[in-house]
Amino acid sequence: MAFRLTPHERGFYPLFTRAAENIAVAADELAKLVATDPAGRHTLAARVKEAELAGDEVTHEIMVKINTTFVTPFDREDIYRLASALDDVLDAIEEAADRIVLYRLGTLPDGIGAQVEVLQRAAAATAEAMPRLEKMAELQEYWIQVNSLENEADDIYRTLLGDLLAPPEGAPPADVLTVLKTKEVVETLEEAADAFETVANTVESIAVKEA
Amino acid sequence: MAFRLTPHERGFYPLFTRAAENIAVAADELAKLVATDPAGRHTLAARVKEAELAGDEVTHEIMVKINTTFVTPFDREDIYRLASALDDVLDAIEEAADRIVLYRLGTLPDGIGAQVEVLQRAAAATAEAMPRLEKMAELQEYWIQVNSLENEADDIYRTLLGDLLAPPEGAPPADVLTVLKTKEVVETLEEAADAFETVANTVESIAVKEA
Amino acid sequence: MAFRLTPHERGFYPLFTRAAENIAVAADELAKLVATDPAGRHTLAARVKEAELAGDEVTHEIMVKINTTFVTPFDREDIYRLASALDDVLDAIEEAADRIVLYRLGTLPDGIGAQVEVLQRAAAATAEAMPRLEKMAELQEYWIQVNSLENEADDIYRTLLGDLLAPPEGAPPADVLTVLKTKEVVETLEEAADAFETVANTVESIAVKEA
Repeated sequence: MAFRLTPHERGFYPLFTRAAENIAVAADELAKLVATDPAGRHTLAARVKEAELAGDEVTHEIMVKINTTFVTPFDREDIYRLASALDDVLDAIEEAADRIVLYRLGTLPDGIGAQVEVLQRAAAATAEAMPRLEKMAELQEYWIQVNSLENEADDIYRTLLGDLLAPPEGAPPADVLTVLKTKEVVETLEEAADAFETVANTVESIAVKEA
Repeated sequence: MAFRLTPHERGFYPLFTRAAENIAVAADELAKLVATDPAGRHTLAARVKEAELAGDEVTHEIMVKINTTFVTPFDREDIYRLASALDDVLDAIEEAADRIVLYRLGTLPDGIGAQVEVLQRAAAATAEAMPRLEKMAELQEYWIQVNSLENEADDIYRTLLGDLLAPPEGAPPADVLTVLKTKEVVETLEEAADAFETVANTVESIAVKEA
Repeated sequence: MAFRLTPHERGFYPLFTRAAENIAVAADELAKLVATDPAGRHTLAARVKEAELAGDEVTHEIMVKINTTFVTPFDREDIYRLASALDDVLDAIEEAADRIVLYRLGTLPDGIGAQVEVLQRAAAATAEAMPRLEKMAELQEYWIQVNSLENEADDIYRTLLGDLLAPPEGAPPADVLTVLKTKEVVETLEEAADAFETVANTVESIAVKEA
């Protein structure tokens, strides 16, 4: 990043870091939720919801700062896009937790645990990358990592969908309503994985401009 | 908004107002449709379709004007985004009406009436706000109102999904095909509510820039 | 397009043409896939997948070129949007082929063949239009054609959905899991048709700016 004569507002970086750390918290609570018995899910879903509300606060702080800061560290529009992309990740994680409870799902297929585990790793990678935004340093390994996690998530997602909708011969007949509900949770988790990729792509496009 | 030396084209404002008023007409016809017997729905769906075609006309007029106007009242891209966002609202309303008829749905759950009622209020708020775009006046209460309506819509949507997919104990067993069809209508109405919020967010971002 | 003093990089045009020709290949293989017996689908899905990977290569080449080219023939952001829109078409075509195989679907409804046939025509129109981007010539007939194909696709899609979810009286009772799987393929094909329209709209917006 070029040397700048105008010292610009650095307060955005800690906010992005806070947003990503908060996503990591939500992903960890979701992991506990999908590993626990249906009876224990309510409390954990409430914690995911708390994280989502904390995230909304951070997003709001970023938006206010965009409109009240004279010199932003990078384009206002890019700040807006990055904040929105982080917000989308959190929304998808919260929606997945909410749906599992709302639909009173019983035992979940193992693949859902695997999906969430990938989300946890993507969240950790994102939380580690955000503080490096300020120096635009070592961001490439972050993109590569998130893109590779997204491929991993895709494979799990695809297998889950196949097992759900075209169960192997000899498997017990599926209850269609359960298929429908499980499919929606699986798709929401895939959205979260895609949303992490959007965050990484947004960071990449900012880094390219600022290079 | 700063004083401008170049008198710019004011013809955009009436077009946005017309677009929003037309959405209000479509929402009102949809409200009649969901309150009536299946036999009477066809005629009302045709009126929603008429409103959609009228809306396409307005969108087209705006697009032509963007390309033929030298000085626009705000960024061309913002005009384009606002026109598209209004168009998306109307598309979702028309799609919901179309699906109810196409799927030959019988009696609809009460929650659908509640969803449409929120859409009517969002449409009225939007139609009232559009003429204020010119002076960028009193737009904040409009955003707050639409955002609060969106939260209301979310709650209704969430309860509807829960009742559909995880009916309370003792409820008669659901016909899965009916669940599937109803779910699609419910989701399309939720898209319409989200689309109203996108309109409000677009107006907000324009107001912030022009402030 | 105005005369330019700075000779700019022309290498983007052949890349867009290659992307569109590759989409045409994928659409043709998909047409064979939906016309063949379930047993023969695997090989054809693999060919669609190959085309998708070839497309990813082209997209990557365009993205690298955006970042390494000093003077681009039109806005970097527009190049990015056009490349992404072409990529979205290919993704939807590949997803449809993949789902048909993954879900082990049996005989497909005729409407699916009709959907794919429209996609083939849209692909051919797009492949013919791309080389004309350089001179911004005769692009209007391309937009009109793609928009009219999109309307055709919409009608087929709507009838298919109606037949699937509200089968005519006297039709044999539907297997809901098959309905669910078929519906997803039908929707993915509709996404491909919409994605062609987005490509055409992107080209239109570029042409308007450069005019």
